[in-house]
Amino acid sequence: MTAGVIGAAGYAGAELTRLLAGHPEIDGLLPASVSFEGERIESVYPHFLGEVSARLLKPEEAAAGADVVFAALPHGVGESYALSCVERGVPFIDLSADFRFDGDEAAFSAWYGKPYRYPELRKRSVYGLPELNRSRIRELAAAGPVIIGNPGCYPTGASLGAFPALAKGLAASGTIIVDAASGVTGGGREPSRSFHYPECADSFAPYKVGGHRHTPEIARNFAAMAAGQDRPALIFTPHLAPMNRGILSTIYIPLRAEWRPASGAAREAVLPPSKEVEEQAAAIRRLYADFYKDEPFVRILPEGLAAATNRVRLSNYCDISVHLDQSGSTLIIVSAIDNMVKGAAGQAVQNMNVIFGFDEKAGLGNVPALF
Amino acid sequence: MTAGVIGAAGYAGAELTRLLAGHPEIDGLLPASVSFEGERIESVYPHFLGEVSARLLKPEEAAAGADVVFAALPHGVGESYALSCVERGVPFIDLSADFRFDGDEAAFSAWYGKPYRYPELRKRSVYGLPELNRSRIRELAAAGPVIIGNPGCYPTGASLGAFPALAKGLAASGTIIVDAASGVTGGGREPSRSFHYPECADSFAPYKVGGHRHTPEIARNFAAMAAGQDRPALIFTPHLAPMNRGILSTIYIPLRAEWRPASGAAREAVLPPSKEVEEQAAAIRRLYADFYKDEPFVRILPEGLAAATNRVRLSNYCDISVHLDQSGSTLIIVSAIDNMVKGAAGQAVQNMNVIFGFDEKAGLGNVPALF
Amino acid sequence: MTAGVIGAAGYAGAELTRLLAGHPEIDGLLPASVSFEGERIESVYPHFLGEVSARLLKPEEAAAGADVVFAALPHGVGESYALSCVERGVPFIDLSADFRFDGDEAAFSAWYGKPYRYPELRKRSVYGLPELNRSRIRELAAAGPVIIGNPGCYPTGASLGAFPALAKGLAASGTIIVDAASGVTGGGREPSRSFHYPECADSFAPYKVGGHRHTPEIARNFAAMAAGQDRPALIFTPHLAPMNRGILSTIYIPLRAEWRPASGAAREAVLPPSKEVEEQAAAIRRLYADFYKDEPFVRILPEGLAAATNRVRLSNYCDISVHLDQSGSTLIIVSAIDNMVKGAAGQAVQNMNVIFGFDEKAGLGNVPALF
Amino acid sequence: MTAGVIGAAGYAGAELTRLLAGHPEIDGLLPASVSFEGERIESVYPHFLGEVSARLLKPEEAAAGADVVFAALPHGVGESYALSCVERGVPFIDLSADFRFDGDEAAFSAWYGKPYRYPELRKRSVYGLPELNRSRIRELAAAGPVIIGNPGCYPTGASLGAFPALAKGLAASGTIIVDAASGVTGGGREPSRSFHYPECADSFAPYKVGGHRHTPEIARNFAAMAAGQDRPALIFTPHLAPMNRGILSTIYIPLRAEWRPASGAAREAVLPPSKEVEEQAAAIRRLYADFYKDEPFVRILPEGLAAATNRVRLSNYCDISVHLDQSGSTLIIVSAIDNMVKGAAGQAVQNMNVIFGFDEKAGLGNVPALF
Repeated sequence: MTAGVIGAAGYAGAELTRLLAGHPEIDGLLPASVSFEGERIESVYPHFLGEVSARLLKPEEAAAGADVVFAALPHGVGESYALSCVERGVPFIDLSADFRFDGDEAAFSAWYGKPYRYPELRKRSVYGLPELNRSRIRELAAAGPVIIGNPGCYPTGASLGAFPALAKGLAASGTIIVDAASGVTGGGREPSRSFHYPECADSFAPYKVGGHRHTPEIARNFAAMAAGQDRPALIFTPHLAPMNRGILSTIYIPLRAEWRPASGAAREAVLPPSKEVEEQAAAIRRLYADFYKDEPFVRILPEGLAAATNRVRLSNYCDISVHLDQSGSTLIIVSAIDNMVKGAAGQAVQNMNVIFGFDEKAGLGNVPALF
Repeated sequence: MTAGVIGAAGYAGAELTRLLAGHPEIDGLLPASVSFEGERIESVYPHFLGEVSARLLKPEEAAAGADVVFAALPHGVGESYALSCVERGVPFIDLSADFRFDGDEAAFSAWYGKPYRYPELRKRSVYGLPELNRSRIRELAAAGPVIIGNPGCYPTGASLGAFPALAKGLAASGTIIVDAASGVTGGGREPSRSFHYPECADSFAPYKVGGHRHTPEIARNFAAMAAGQDRPALIFTPHLAPMNRGILSTIYIPLRAEWRPASGAAREAVLPPSKEVEEQAAAIRRLYADFYKDEPFVRILPEGLAAATNRVRLSNYCDISVHLDQSGSTLIIVSAIDNMVKGAAGQAVQNMNVIFGFDEKAGLGNVPALF
Repeated sequence: MTAGVIGAAGYAGAELTRLLAGHPEIDGLLPASVSFEGERIESVYPHFLGEVSARLLKPEEAAAGADVVFAALPHGVGESYALSCVERGVPFIDLSADFRFDGDEAAFSAWYGKPYRYPELRKRSVYGLPELNRSRIRELAAAGPVIIGNPGCYPTGASLGAFPALAKGLAASGTIIVDAASGVTGGGREPSRSFHYPECADSFAPYKVGGHRHTPEIARNFAAMAAGQDRPALIFTPHLAPMNRGILSTIYIPLRAEWRPASGAAREAVLPPSKEVEEQAAAIRRLYADFYKDEPFVRILPEGLAAATNRVRLSNYCDISVHLDQSGSTLIIVSAIDNMVKGAAGQAVQNMNVIFGFDEKAGLGNVPALF
Repeated sequence: MTAGVIGAAGYAGAELTRLLAGHPEIDGLLPASVSFEGERIESVYPHFLGEVSARLLKPEEAAAGADVVFAALPHGVGESYALSCVERGVPFIDLSADFRFDGDEAAFSAWYGKPYRYPELRKRSVYGLPELNRSRIRELAAAGPVIIGNPGCYPTGASLGAFPALAKGLAASGTIIVDAASGVTGGGREPSRSFHYPECADSFAPYKVGGHRHTPEIARNFAAMAAGQDRPALIFTPHLAPMNRGILSTIYIPLRAEWRPASGAAREAVLPPSKEVEEQAAAIRRLYADFYKDEPFVRILPEGLAAATNRVRLSNYCDISVHLDQSGSTLIIVSAIDNMVKGAAGQAVQNMNVIFGFDEKAGLGNVPALF
């Protein structure tokens, strides 16, 4: 099977190319790039020398010649490739935000500042978070050429961390806070002051506080999982951490009364965590483990271990640790993903595996880098 | 004037020694160390070569010979030096937690696992956050030898960030969440797996979720500043970031209705921030600037700038940026300090300056390292 | 086939376990550890959760039950396991220095401070640098159970960089200087001041100048490759760089007159590199490419590209770039490896592949991490 | 006294501004910038908030109004400001290469690709390495307005490391190799792919091998110091290390026979360092210490300590450690500087101090950052 990758010279597209090069079901690669068309991918990324050798095609060539087409392009420029894939009858997996909002063009436009070009394509598209929409992806794929709106990096980590609490009714009506930190690859390959080494090394800072456009995507996922309940309010704050890969999300979910320790300390007491609080955390941890027991890429960590980005590096895993604040009134979930794998390219490959009925771990089943 | 530094071989003690070496009012240094007694400080830290040359004394010698004594020791071992200083009539500035809880021995014992050795010393001690207790420090110092409980690193950043909101009645009754990240020097000089380079480089993770012992110290500060109002509940989550210095605190404070934008969006709407929300943020920013207008070490950042640890590096500044979430219902304050300066040694020097009536910026007035 | 890994809790042993877990010919793993015996490997390294689950055995158990045994132990403690493997008839691949010096016990003792315990084992042992000794490894393996002295990390990068120049007679009699930098994983998993994050982050420094014990190993390799010519003198200086993985070696080889540009600039002229110098560098680059044309893991980089550690990360590749100084009198070779893969665990797997006649890239054929 | 800084928005210019803000003899600052003219320096670098507040002037304004003018501009654009300063009778301290080659316009042109614009200005200029030219700087300054060609970062570290060996005749005729590594601030403030965080974090690589234009500057310094002896040949290789600040130079100097240990090991023996070699290293270390005994910014490290960039961070020190290879035939000198201080802005301030007869440590006398 041949895979096309439009935008293969960017970080997400190159990571996709790396993963597809090792995928057992893929035997042909058609990488394409607007900016580097005509150059060889192993010139742009000499890492590929000896492993992948290919001329970067025009995007149209990749879209026209492959059995599955991935696009890692800026938002709002790839719909025409989606259209041509649908017409040709092959799946299109899009890493931009263009297909993440389904029919809600208003939300997309409010945050991304442009309308849909071909709104009708959303009839064939699905938000590609397999842990949320696996059966819908399969249905659409069975019915014809599917378009995947591959999730954003932050929304993946935040959603997987909150899903069990939302689905099982643990969350009180109130505000869920997602405080997250990302490695610098999240900013892409284009040099800029924000990602200039001396400006971000040895430093930690938030950005776009109160206004990052992954907020509506996270909110949509929360609402979808909490269906039938009050839609929880959401605050999302991203930070930049001095590291290459990884997103860590610390998620604060106010607990409904019945999920708090029976004789829990008053919230104001500020005592060290009690045995009762720890037991309640353990109970919720078991609930989380049960919720995800069939998921190939979610790991609920045992007590005593907090999720860390360096334990999922270069893997498609999402690690989740479950905690309570010392009063037992707020659930604190920590999730860790590799922003370039489960947060982008790996998830895209996972979606391809779902679409074609491959083993979902095909091309993705490896131990994370140990250091 | 001669300054003694007990625990000068640890990170905080060495940083103190560095700052005191450049202090215009200090002309003698008596560094001391239990573990390295007899060695020279410029052997333990060759950085000092050509600038500071001194044999590391026994702690007793430093306590007995100086006009002001600093101690950077593990919790629970330095009270006897405080006692001897009080008896000799010289101030004692303690960087451990021993004097941070005043008469509340129960809170100290619950989190630190040991009782006070000389409880009566708390009559002469004060929690040394000048922005909270400057006049109390002066009063005690005027009345005799004072003992300073120098604040913890996290509590300093968290408290300075929340104080104006608490003092001015902006905070609704609800939970304040402090989500913070620290550089690795916060873990001290002793090697351990957690701070082994390959274990924490290129990674980001929380620790002691729901149970860090800076929690009660932060809660005490919040309650002191919110006096007369409901004591707000607190959740504090520390993270370790792959950098040497700095603490960033992202602080979520639910706003009382009168401080929200008048016709604010519904919390569930998830729209980009409106002009009205931005104007309300600007109003609160002005309130913050006014609150701190006479403070020499607090900087309220202008709109468009978020606090970052690399802009306070090696300085005693606390930078604060003021934001709202997109619905205008939660105040998001970001504060940045250098954990080893304003979070430890610099604040100790600031306390000395207050005690002796020196210019409060003496020895501390410098532009942060630019990179 | 079942593989035993003695010392699986150390960095090299854990990396071996990670690689073997993905090796197509290995279906059983017997990890063992002295310090962590009885614990599970996924507790020591939670990275393995969901991928590798195994109790850490006693070393004897791993040595007794596997079809091939790897040992990643301190120098001088693993010979008895080698002996038991030879007696059982299975190959033993040793990552310590114990079998790197063949019969030259004097050299080993001079640098490692202890004698051989079973000197006669060297009859069955071979220095396992496949690019030097592939046929000898095969011969010994064909004749019975072979013992591999897996090369040190620095010697691997230095030797591969210098081999073509030595083998083809480019090197003048004089001193070859190897100036190298390593990531911190090279120091192993045990915490110590040298590898404490705040002591090595954001810093660069040499260590063991003029006396690192990889010096004699490099010298032996140079002499072996330069056989029949004057044995070149060697200076080797290692540095510690603030990164996790990778070794970069910058190697200065004085050129024999016939390899210098015909009308080369006087060495003292200090002019920018001329076209003639660049052409001579290109000629030597071709010679290097030809020398390694059948090697699966050596890549000679094209003109304009210098070797960099981040392009071989997590791969078994050795990248080599070929340069001349501006006078054309000294060949400057730069080689880059991942110290934990080609410099340790990957090379051990490569040796296993050679011994058993597997595809030499089995379990090792992947694109390096792109970032 | 008022100081002008042209190019104050670049890294070197901003660092200069930071240092001058704390200089006891400077009470007025006139920062200027071509690209940011009209903006405030505390907007470009919010680090300055509360410490330095100034509008960025046109370069002409700074040149016209100050008692001493610094320029941190690209090569080849600042000569007219030098001219105007000379005409006004005030010193001009230039951080570009324009005045580093004195009357040797040919060397400058060969490496920098442009001619001198006002060649006659070199009559009033001097290469500003105080350890080489202090008396010449004083002479010129006494005679009228002096122009300082402030040294490059690499040449400073390399020259100070080699000077005693060259001046005292230790170096055999042969090639001196300078293998150096720099932090990323050396590349300046302008974003580019090479200095994009994900491209250089966690990696180590050389650049411009055999052709960096600091080579002729180093060679000139070596020749000046070795006057009367054979001009030694030079190879210089720079590397980029994943850190913000610092340059480490490892310098290999072949020793003349009389400086080798009397009964030294054969160079080919590859034995651990002998007592005799260590004693000879100690003798040369004493010679180095004696050579620099009156220098305020050079520290010769004691035996057992190798120079490291993190021990000179944010200081004007050059640390030097003295070693021999194990055969005793090559002197290995390691020098460490902060590339932005002694390698740029600090040295410029030192030159100002020399010109005006201030204490040479004024504004520069501080303990390096400890971490």
